[in-house]
Amino acid sequence: MDKVRLGIIGIGGMGTNHARSILEGKVPDMVLTAVADIRKERLDFAKDNLSSDLALFSDGKELIDSGLCDAVLIATAHYQHPEYVSYALTHGVHALSEKPAGVYTKQVKEMNEVAAKSDKVFAIMLNQRTNCVYRKLHEMMQSGELGALKRVNWIITDWYRTQAYYDAAGWKATWAGEGGGVLINQCPHQLDLLQWLCGMPTKVRAFCHEAKWHNIEVEDDVTAYLEFANGATGVFVTTTGDAPGTNRLELTFEMGKIVCENDNLIFDKVSENVSTHCKTEKEGFKKPDCTRITVETDGLNEQHIGVFKAFAGRILRGEKLVAEGAEGINGLTLSNAMYLSSWLDKTVEIPFDEDLFLKELDKRRATSKIKQDAGIVFDTTGTY
Amino acid sequence: MDKVRLGIIGIGGMGTNHARSILEGKVPDMVLTAVADIRKERLDFAKDNLSSDLALFSDGKELIDSGLCDAVLIATAHYQHPEYVSYALTHGVHALSEKPAGVYTKQVKEMNEVAAKSDKVFAIMLNQRTNCVYRKLHEMMQSGELGALKRVNWIITDWYRTQAYYDAAGWKATWAGEGGGVLINQCPHQLDLLQWLCGMPTKVRAFCHEAKWHNIEVEDDVTAYLEFANGATGVFVTTTGDAPGTNRLELTFEMGKIVCENDNLIFDKVSENVSTHCKTEKEGFKKPDCTRITVETDGLNEQHIGVFKAFAGRILRGEKLVAEGAEGINGLTLSNAMYLSSWLDKTVEIPFDEDLFLKELDKRRATSKIKQDAGIVFDTTGTY
Repeated sequence: MDKVRLGIIGIGGMGTNHARSILEGKVPDMVLTAVADIRKERLDFAKDNLSSDLALFSDGKELIDSGLCDAVLIATAHYQHPEYVSYALTHGVHALSEKPAGVYTKQVKEMNEVAAKSDKVFAIMLNQRTNCVYRKLHEMMQSGELGALKRVNWIITDWYRTQAYYDAAGWKATWAGEGGGVLINQCPHQLDLLQWLCGMPTKVRAFCHEAKWHNIEVEDDVTAYLEFANGATGVFVTTTGDAPGTNRLELTFEMGKIVCENDNLIFDKVSENVSTHCKTEKEGFKKPDCTRITVETDGLNEQHIGVFKAFAGRILRGEKLVAEGAEGINGLTLSNAMYLSSWLDKTVEIPFDEDLFLKELDKRRATSKIKQDAGIVFDTTGTY
Repeated sequence: MDKVRLGIIGIGGMGTNHARSILEGKVPDMVLTAVADIRKERLDFAKDNLSSDLALFSDGKELIDSGLCDAVLIATAHYQHPEYVSYALTHGVHALSEKPAGVYTKQVKEMNEVAAKSDKVFAIMLNQRTNCVYRKLHEMMQSGELGALKRVNWIITDWYRTQAYYDAAGWKATWAGEGGGVLINQCPHQLDLLQWLCGMPTKVRAFCHEAKWHNIEVEDDVTAYLEFANGATGVFVTTTGDAPGTNRLELTFEMGKIVCENDNLIFDKVSENVSTHCKTEKEGFKKPDCTRITVETDGLNEQHIGVFKAFAGRILRGEKLVAEGAEGINGLTLSNAMYLSSWLDKTVEIPFDEDLFLKELDKRRATSKIKQDAGIVFDTTGTY
């Protein structure tokens, strides 16, 4: 294989963006050969606006079976991600899934089991892991130089969306069509990064507010409290209702504090492990000395292109992925736990009861109303 | 009356600080005439180190009855604040209480009832209300220019204390002696400011961790989730275990966001009410325009001296207090609600069951162990 022949299943906002990137040659190891969508107007759009050379399919599985693609990107509605990934991997085609991995962990666990038995590559679009700031933070936390994690506080409220955003697509922000709101659509990146950096919490207490700022079925405002195995605590706050909003991640360690905001890492480094200092210092109010360091990174932040390049690199040369597909379940576990905690109005331990979660989700799907589709596909460039 | 003759009841760390300020003439309308303490060594200290002219009392009520004082400052252990305030006000002496107003609201409510019937002045040492930054914020929020409050997030984790701090005084950080930890000792200022700025929450869900960073009985790490009557939500995080820690208050409104940190107020002001914009904007991702403003203040921050000046001014000339004594119950209501939520492991509505709170507190007092007192009084200058 010289270049990976890619097919895109689901040519809405995100799928179209990705198609353009490949067609513009941003991923040298890849060519776009086919697109699939259940909506005829999107196929017409693709033919007229993307490339007239593309093979068009109204069924993603036909695209997979066509022999025209070595790999597929799945950019359908969330519920269908596991179905198409599993179909591709069992039909000789590599799969890259958009986030989230699925809507409920039970479904994703089954997909991961299929993937584990397949020799095809399975990746997931967790493009924020390519950001130099998070990569550097991950490296520092893995190195042990920071001591134990004590506290994390992520205010990620800069996901502003207007009512028009929700009205544009019938499946969006419905339990039946999308399976949730800001947690399932906007936050998979941060929830993945949170567990990638800090490990998985053991307990979650969340407060999800539905239709708080928009006329929608699902949550658009969430505050969650977390506890980790070592006793560290956390807060995660998100919404699509605030402007300008905030994206500020504060992490407190025995060796100081790191704040990640505006693509900077500011490290307030203490001269002595705080836990040791607390026990040995004779003065009551004296803190260890502290030095402020602006942490340098390699400055690279390839985002989606980085994920595509690594995906092609794995297929062609066995290189490292940005995120293994099977890791997509971790962030989803967090959002599922937040929903369940809020629905049950109590603290949820991880692992939680997946059957109970699905039962609760199905209750909401049963009364969910898919809206009239306005047929608008927004240009999503630079919004994720 | 030419000058207010002040007596200080409780001449520990805070009482000593205040005594020095008065003796140094920082409050022109006041003279210090007497001090009281149950500890003979503190009276000896006062005589030798403060002023040999001071009348000394081993009983605060004798000081009140002595006729040497027009007003008293109560700086005893927290449980005794209401008792001495009530005694002063019913014996013809004006009272200024250190924070907190007491340990449980039931006790403070009784004190407030006594105060309501007295013609003497009752004030409370909520000195952070003199800070220009909080005064300006209060003024802006009261003016209505910011629209409705949507969200508040206060990370106040710069209250670092060493184990030596807790070991120094036997009553500190015990249920029986102090009645709590970081919420009752360090945070009354922030809890008062929170309700002063945002109004009282209607629901509280808190997670108080006892002895997490220190060898103490009480909590030294708290995360609380709040809900307000208008639907706004909040997060309050505090600890005495972090260094360097953070003091960052973020408030989100329909007209933008204000961050209060490092004695600055940064206002990200949007061009249009976010709630209106959300409904009318045709683009899905477009935020209203935003301008960053560094809010100017009058720069005045008198702290304790400001509270004393206003207290004397009220007594002598009927001027405005920094904080009416009766308002002390508000911040205490918040901390009581946080304890109760954590003890019961569930959300608590405000007003909560005060008898239940006292029953739960008394359980903890019953098994509480007042420690051996190391007899150390730290210089607290600049630590509050």
